[in-house]
Amino acid sequence: MKVLDHGYVELVETWGSDQAIIEAARMSTNKGFVGWGTPDAPGDEKLLAYLYNNKHATPFEMAGMVIEVKAPIFVFREWHRHRTQSYNEMSARYVPLPNENYVPDLANVLDRAHSTTKNKQSQAVGSILDAVNADIWIHALKAMYAAAEACYQTALECGVPKELARLIVPVGRYSRMRASANLRNWLAFLTLRTAPNAQWEIRQYANAVASLISESFPRTYNLFCEERVVAHV
Amino acid sequence: MKVLDHGYVELVETWGSDQAIIEAARMSTNKGFVGWGTPDAPGDEKLLAYLYNNKHATPFEMAGMVIEVKAPIFVFREWHRHRTQSYNEMSARYVPLPNENYVPDLANVLDRAHSTTKNKQSQAVGSILDAVNADIWIHALKAMYAAAEACYQTALECGVPKELARLIVPVGRYSRMRASANLRNWLAFLTLRTAPNAQWEIRQYANAVASLISESFPRTYNLFCEERVVAHV
Amino acid sequence: MKVLDHGYVELVETWGSDQAIIEAARMSTNKGFVGWGTPDAPGDEKLLAYLYNNKHATPFEMAGMVIEVKAPIFVFREWHRHRTQSYNEMSARYVPLPNENYVPDLANVLDRAHSTTKNKQSQAVGSILDAVNADIWIHALKAMYAAAEACYQTALECGVPKELARLIVPVGRYSRMRASANLRNWLAFLTLRTAPNAQWEIRQYANAVASLISESFPRTYNLFCEERVVAHV
Amino acid sequence: MKVLDHGYVELVETWGSDQAIIEAARMSTNKGFVGWGTPDAPGDEKLLAYLYNNKHATPFEMAGMVIEVKAPIFVFREWHRHRTQSYNEMSARYVPLPNENYVPDLANVLDRAHSTTKNKQSQAVGSILDAVNADIWIHALKAMYAAAEACYQTALECGVPKELARLIVPVGRYSRMRASANLRNWLAFLTLRTAPNAQWEIRQYANAVASLISESFPRTYNLFCEERVVAHV
Repeated sequence: MKVLDHGYVELVETWGSDQAIIEAARMSTNKGFVGWGTPDAPGDEKLLAYLYNNKHATPFEMAGMVIEVKAPIFVFREWHRHRTQSYNEMSARYVPLPNENYVPDLANVLDRAHSTTKNKQSQAVGSILDAVNADIWIHALKAMYAAAEACYQTALECGVPKELARLIVPVGRYSRMRASANLRNWLAFLTLRTAPNAQWEIRQYANAVASLISESFPRTYNLFCEERVVAHV
Repeated sequence: MKVLDHGYVELVETWGSDQAIIEAARMSTNKGFVGWGTPDAPGDEKLLAYLYNNKHATPFEMAGMVIEVKAPIFVFREWHRHRTQSYNEMSARYVPLPNENYVPDLANVLDRAHSTTKNKQSQAVGSILDAVNADIWIHALKAMYAAAEACYQTALECGVPKELARLIVPVGRYSRMRASANLRNWLAFLTLRTAPNAQWEIRQYANAVASLISESFPRTYNLFCEERVVAHV
Repeated sequence: MKVLDHGYVELVETWGSDQAIIEAARMSTNKGFVGWGTPDAPGDEKLLAYLYNNKHATPFEMAGMVIEVKAPIFVFREWHRHRTQSYNEMSARYVPLPNENYVPDLANVLDRAHSTTKNKQSQAVGSILDAVNADIWIHALKAMYAAAEACYQTALECGVPKELARLIVPVGRYSRMRASANLRNWLAFLTLRTAPNAQWEIRQYANAVASLISESFPRTYNLFCEERVVAHV
Repeated sequence: MKVLDHGYVELVETWGSDQAIIEAARMSTNKGFVGWGTPDAPGDEKLLAYLYNNKHATPFEMAGMVIEVKAPIFVFREWHRHRTQSYNEMSARYVPLPNENYVPDLANVLDRAHSTTKNKQSQAVGSILDAVNADIWIHALKAMYAAAEACYQTALECGVPKELARLIVPVGRYSRMRASANLRNWLAFLTLRTAPNAQWEIRQYANAVASLISESFPRTYNLFCEERVVAHV
């Protein structure tokens, strides 16, 4: 599942299911899963909706997902604020980081600079960005990425320790990790990172995560989407 | 997997594996799983041992287990201090708790009362327990369980709300739950609850959990056991 | 601060303040606390409200509170599901629990049994509770508490280990603990435990906690209250 | 408390104390703080040592510390893996990051490159670093920092959104945050980050944190130090 110019989100494993959530919730009444219903004869989807809409969150901890992610460092910096996930990331102390760096699209840059939404973080601070300057910036960014890489490689070759040579690595460079969380915490991640005020780049990753969740936990994911529609009406 | 007189520990699901732990750890060096070795040609079991013995704990968060447990309330009271697990338990606010209560074995009671180990909690405080008094106590305990149940049932029949009728329920009564945690946290649970100073009853549950872990994560479990041997030498 | 018949909530210590929350939040823009305003010239109370209402929760982790609580075991069983708090509780493995047990008021029992609210847990399951039966139950409960205590004391005197003698202790018996959490997590506790569907007893404790929070963090507490009013309109 | 060339660690606030840890632990036996002793008549320092050495960790959650830290991004990247701390950090989405970048000392770089300890991360990978090349690298690093800053400023002036202009910011640039944790978790941080295999830079920060802890929690800090001595003998 490609994300941005060099990144991806890839499913490693899931555990639990919409049904396992019902089974866990039914512990409280000493019953088990009864069965999903039909439009005419509704079944346990009613309980699932009740749990979700009334924030009975613990049953949603009985399912989860492990994924692998390749993303720029500035995206990982935002991602790692989610302290309920488990992470194992590539380390520039152990291996030189591969020379892959995020370069945004010209159209995307212009679009965000001109946005008049409430998302002030994506807006220009100085003059209004025009296409010429945006293009110049993208070329400058690429040139700077190349210069930083040259500095990094030279340092490594000269014998500067890896953990110091990396000082010049820009936050636009890609890294890679595995991340694991239970479903409750993945949904909390989606709530914050698919929101309009999240940075566009992490939103693309959150959308990819959402797509994996919708496949493995379709009923729970629908409830998540319905709640968001209500919240925005 | 029977535990105590009416309890059990039952596997619901595991995720991850010894191999998945290696894969996660290899994120840091941008490599994957190479393969388990043989005595002559050791493979990734060396990395697993290195991670475990040097307390690189995060890769062990990439695997986990969901179980179902039936145990007395006083065992759950100790269990729930482990705040890194997820719980869904039967609730006496929703359903009357079934009339099942823990009655210890006569031999076990005498054995613990006479123990001269450092485990002071299991020792007698007053006079030395003799077999006659131990037997009397077990009969008294059963009679009191029955009296508490009668009080509980009468209250429910008279219309006392379930959440109040339960006040007389003794902590020896059985309840039921699902519990989920990642492998790192299950091992922390085992460290504390299989230790000699843990109460004998929760130790039986911890041993049952250990047995499930040994089946699903045999290499990691071996490292856990070896460390404990070293710690006690 | 008395709660129920023998319980209490007592402040041990707080850290941080409404102002410290602003200071932490201003890290993101590299500024500090500017000052609270007046109705005519609003100050940092605007930022505090913005943070609270837009669920920017991390600054509220920069303040917190330690309390001491004496409550019945069934209340602690609900309380300890909050896994973000730190607990140290009296242990019946170390000391015999004092003979103090929760006895609800007659009026309160009748009121809850007759309640026609949505709080099904507080309602009668069998026949409708009348005052005579409620009174009989309260007397039976007291008698059973006394019988359980007699069984407990006899066991201790005969030399039954403390950790076994306690099996008959009812969940209505009082215990004592210290609990610590940051403000974000105390507010999450209040949200769940002051809600109308929380059991009446834990609601009394939550109200006492709320009162301590209102004294130490008055501006944050007001925002919490306003949000609840909005949620219920 | 200066750390590295432009960084610092500054105490904001502590809560609890060595005594509060004893008080919390004494909850289990229903007693309070008795008093510190003298060499001839030892007091509660015996219990504190017992708790610490037997890993009774929860009482150490009843104290804590909030600090402010200015450190390079690559240090924060390591720091934020500690998921039990609370963080509020400066955000390059909200404000341009000030132009302060970490430049290591020549002597320090050479020393680490030539180190023959087991800390492989600090060692050279290519040829052996000589003083001339180390000096050249430091000059190149400074020049690259300046070039990255020029690219950053130009982008901001042209109207590139702050959140994109930052892509070129190197991980050697300074940022600022507040961090809060309880004492148990600060000690876990110290264990990992003052260890010889931790990167030299974060070790300087960990040493500064250790110094703050030793002032506010002197008895607990001594136990931490004694344990480390034992572990290394």
